Amino acid sequence: MSRRSELSKSLRGFFEKTLTDVEREIYIEKWKVSSEELGSDGEWRIEKRRLYGGLSDCVDIVEVDNGRFSFVVVPTRGMGIWKGRFEGVCLGWNSPVRSLVHPSFVNLEGRDGLGWLDGFNEWIVRCGIGSFGAPGPDKIIDNMGNEKEVMLTLHGKVANIPANTVKARMRLEPPYELSITGRVYERSMFGSDFEMDTEITTTPGADSIKIIDTVRNLRSLPDEMQTLYHCNYGSPFLEEGSHLLAPIQKVVPRDPRAAEGISEFDVFGPPQTGFVERVYFLKMIGDEKGRASVMLVNKDETKATSVSFSVKELPCFTLWKNTSSLKEGYVVGLEPGTSYPNSKAFERKQERVVKLKPGENHRSEINFSVYASQAEVNRAKKRIEEIGKGIEPEILDRPVKEFSPY
Amino acid sequence: MSRRSELSKSLRGFFEKTLTDVEREIYIEKWKVSSEELGSDGEWRIEKRRLYGGLSDCVDIVEVDNGRFSFVVVPTRGMGIWKGRFEGVCLGWNSPVRSLVHPSFVNLEGRDGLGWLDGFNEWIVRCGIGSFGAPGPDKIIDNMGNEKEVMLTLHGKVANIPANTVKARMRLEPPYELSITGRVYERSMFGSDFEMDTEITTTPGADSIKIIDTVRNLRSLPDEMQTLYHCNYGSPFLEEGSHLLAPIQKVVPRDPRAAEGISEFDVFGPPQTGFVERVYFLKMIGDEKGRASVMLVNKDETKATSVSFSVKELPCFTLWKNTSSLKEGYVVGLEPGTSYPNSKAFERKQERVVKLKPGENHRSEINFSVYASQAEVNRAKKRIEEIGKGIEPEILDRPVKEFSPY
Amino acid sequence: MSRRSELSKSLRGFFEKTLTDVEREIYIEKWKVSSEELGSDGEWRIEKRRLYGGLSDCVDIVEVDNGRFSFVVVPTRGMGIWKGRFEGVCLGWNSPVRSLVHPSFVNLEGRDGLGWLDGFNEWIVRCGIGSFGAPGPDKIIDNMGNEKEVMLTLHGKVANIPANTVKARMRLEPPYELSITGRVYERSMFGSDFEMDTEITTTPGADSIKIIDTVRNLRSLPDEMQTLYHCNYGSPFLEEGSHLLAPIQKVVPRDPRAAEGISEFDVFGPPQTGFVERVYFLKMIGDEKGRASVMLVNKDETKATSVSFSVKELPCFTLWKNTSSLKEGYVVGLEPGTSYPNSKAFERKQERVVKLKPGENHRSEINFSVYASQAEVNRAKKRIEEIGKGIEPEILDRPVKEFSPY
Repeated sequence: MSRRSELSKSLRGFFEKTLTDVEREIYIEKWKVSSEELGSDGEWRIEKRRLYGGLSDCVDIVEVDNGRFSFVVVPTRGMGIWKGRFEGVCLGWNSPVRSLVHPSFVNLEGRDGLGWLDGFNEWIVRCGIGSFGAPGPDKIIDNMGNEKEVMLTLHGKVANIPANTVKARMRLEPPYELSITGRVYERSMFGSDFEMDTEITTTPGADSIKIIDTVRNLRSLPDEMQTLYHCNYGSPFLEEGSHLLAPIQKVVPRDPRAAEGISEFDVFGPPQTGFVERVYFLKMIGDEKGRASVMLVNKDETKATSVSFSVKELPCFTLWKNTSSLKEGYVVGLEPGTSYPNSKAFERKQERVVKLKPGENHRSEINFSVYASQAEVNRAKKRIEEIGKGIEPEILDRPVKEFSPY
Repeated sequence: MSRRSELSKSLRGFFEKTLTDVEREIYIEKWKVSSEELGSDGEWRIEKRRLYGGLSDCVDIVEVDNGRFSFVVVPTRGMGIWKGRFEGVCLGWNSPVRSLVHPSFVNLEGRDGLGWLDGFNEWIVRCGIGSFGAPGPDKIIDNMGNEKEVMLTLHGKVANIPANTVKARMRLEPPYELSITGRVYERSMFGSDFEMDTEITTTPGADSIKIIDTVRNLRSLPDEMQTLYHCNYGSPFLEEGSHLLAPIQKVVPRDPRAAEGISEFDVFGPPQTGFVERVYFLKMIGDEKGRASVMLVNKDETKATSVSFSVKELPCFTLWKNTSSLKEGYVVGLEPGTSYPNSKAFERKQERVVKLKPGENHRSEINFSVYASQAEVNRAKKRIEEIGKGIEPEILDRPVKEFSPY
Repeated sequence: MSRRSELSKSLRGFFEKTLTDVEREIYIEKWKVSSEELGSDGEWRIEKRRLYGGLSDCVDIVEVDNGRFSFVVVPTRGMGIWKGRFEGVCLGWNSPVRSLVHPSFVNLEGRDGLGWLDGFNEWIVRCGIGSFGAPGPDKIIDNMGNEKEVMLTLHGKVANIPANTVKARMRLEPPYELSITGRVYERSMFGSDFEMDTEITTTPGADSIKIIDTVRNLRSLPDEMQTLYHCNYGSPFLEEGSHLLAPIQKVVPRDPRAAEGISEFDVFGPPQTGFVERVYFLKMIGDEKGRASVMLVNKDETKATSVSFSVKELPCFTLWKNTSSLKEGYVVGLEPGTSYPNSKAFERKQERVVKLKPGENHRSEINFSVYASQAEVNRAKKRIEEIGKGIEPEILDRPVKEFSPY
């Protein structure tokens, strides 16, 4: 079979196709493969293409469809995931920024450090790696060995860095995993040197996706890193009466505005023009493996979607309630991170910034699942309740200085 | 006829070709059509292509030639018009920036907010939409609902935003209009969300071009918009002794330097090394339809070009006299706008910033004509004089605080 | 011979191929030519291609291999030279930024003016033209004729401006020179207007490369220019015990840290984690033609590489000792320039900024040679010693205010 032989350089029961490898000058503009061509299980397909025109000009995307669950990986935007679709139901949200934006049209320094928002529309977007959170001044060591004040921009750089390598990998034996892997470098002379390897995996017919990221400090000096997964949901998971289910240990409102709504922090309202975001900082309880699952459930509990992660890897969970009008971006963010999205300087003081020794790495594994029936929602709900069992969440009714500067 | 059938999706006597549509993933790199192929009237052609290399790399252009009048629309630079040519006579000017500059090479924040000038060389370039004018601080509402000071950069963003959709449209019946339409979005999460539709139209053999722009506020909140058409002319319309003819109601010098030259504000000098721009703010009188025509006439009145617009749509007219040396950019700008090009904060205080309710739009229709003989110039002159008849222009000899902060 | 005829537009015994010419809309994505095809001397080849993917997306490179010495010219990055290779030995260094970075991914304003470092990895990179050196405030004259304070960013713009024209030129008679020529514009409305012509030449089998640059002030006003050749070397020319040989007249440490190491300013240490750069400002002695040769020699003097230039054209030589760890960029910079890399405002006060009248130009000719045996190193060493003969270098043991502000 010719397609098999094209792909057959791979080892140990995998087919692997390199789509981009900058060092080796490999770049495939258009490519696709399907279960049929590969004689594999299920009815899946993977398609790589480049977009042209408008602000999406020269954005590379890789679409994976496992037969039930499809999603669009965006190598050009740091291996984020633009949109997902499970049996016709959309995962993601409708940002006012409708189409994918090439990083060259995003000036992170713009709007006094809020330029990141000009390209913000993904379902899952990583914030980091050198920093994330609110823009703010920070000190760096410059080339002369002196302290220099710089302005860190909103949510850092990684979402606007194209991946250096991108590969599609298909397992030829059960469970026939389908993976897109990528490597992104956030590095500079006289600056940080992070290598992030990501592996985004699903299996034919599955209702879930798994992301495993490994961030390595390539410097010969210690460095600081921060990473947050900004996972954003609009309709249909978000609607009036949708609610959050999670093994919560503690909830702290970010600011007075969030404090006002603390009694209903875990319930979501309808789209509301003029709604101003309410942000809550949470600590989750992990299960026996240290993992927590946070679920967004629709009103009548017939549909839900969850984000699962390790509370060791990502100890700080942020809930972003932005139930603004549909046109302004009706959205809720479920955001596990290494810290909260305050300025890096603030988070450092709270000792929530990760330090990596030379060569050391930080690993995060996150699962995204969809529950498409009441029965499935119920089962997932029970698992979550089981973890939090007997623990009364501590809910603070105003901001505290260990959590936020407001 | 195969070409006809290629184009034949269109309705009601039009042929329409989509050249770019980001949402539908349509992008045509090279395309052309001509009167001959279409069996249409006149000897016109339309050609779309992408430029490569230098600062023009990946800039898309659409050249329209109606047989006498040709011009280059630049989708990549917000649907501006680069250069025109009427029977061998150039419309536009010679900026020191000779070739088209891709927005990714323009840092609007650069040079303390003057970065826009790095790409400035068009005949007709829109300034706006969120703001235009001199760089300066302004207050925005950030994601947290708080006021935040940002620096607005010179002349705003729209000239550096690639169009999301671009179409060529040809009418198949008299008068056989040739149009390039485009849609540009200036939008961001937690920011403005403007949709600008433009339609640039001419007819075979005509001596004029018409631009109709509609700017829509897509937010569910009110927003402010500003738009100015920076229409720039060098030789041969501009020469020593060229002059301005217009139905003027009032003229105000922007600053003391402009005041010095107030007695000859409407006459242009020769190229002069070291000349510093003189800028005048004008109010025009509209005709029975509310339209004003501003004409730049060469010395012996054998050649002229006009910009016509509605004084309701664009009530503020700016005259930019920049008769510097040929190498520095010998140019005069005729600039109808919604306000004057002071900082947005200043213009807001003067209540000259347009407010758009949710869904509301602002429309501008501008005509560009060329008069290629003394007889034609005379006729156009009379029409202009007719409008201003009996009204003595009020000419102030120094800046006043309602018009400028200097 | 068909290849000859393809190339045969050229005159006077040259073949010339235009690879990019923005004004003429010429752009060749892929092209190659070799001695064999051209029936020329030696075993050389020239290859042009465009890179795709990652941060190198859309970067054009031209690889020249004279049979012994190969190097990669980067039109997209201001005609810098990325890497060289002489008989298997690498010229250049390993920056943490491993791959070529397209200018659209470099925000010069970033990191408080240090953004240039995000794309810094070339063997030879020009700094300039309007300014180079440390970021810092400077005054410009704005469009209104007023003084305006702007921040000049590290090392200026030219390394991040794509060339407007690129040509390959091969002489058809001895010595069969192989040249890549390019023209880069650094220009803006109401700003500088520099035209830089570069000619990068080698001959089949040669051990050297020559760069001739001509920077022209196209304005009708006088302007200031600065240019520095940042020539960077890592292993194998740089190693513990490598040393500098040069006809030195004067050495001044930039700052107290450099002063600490003044006794061994011309000897290089091993890679050292945490090493902070030491920078020395030097004056060189020219030979009878006014030329100085600066040589980096490995420990046992079996391998060396030199940079030769005119002390009239480039009177200020900077030695950048950055013997940091291999991962951080173990590198020594040999940097002939029109001034030292302090802020432009400081250099102007010292009268080291070049003033160009309208139409005037500044020319620099630099030679890069490799010495691959002890005998060759010895010969080169003797020539350098001959120039400096009888002159005792003046070595200052602390910074002085005419040389640096620290």
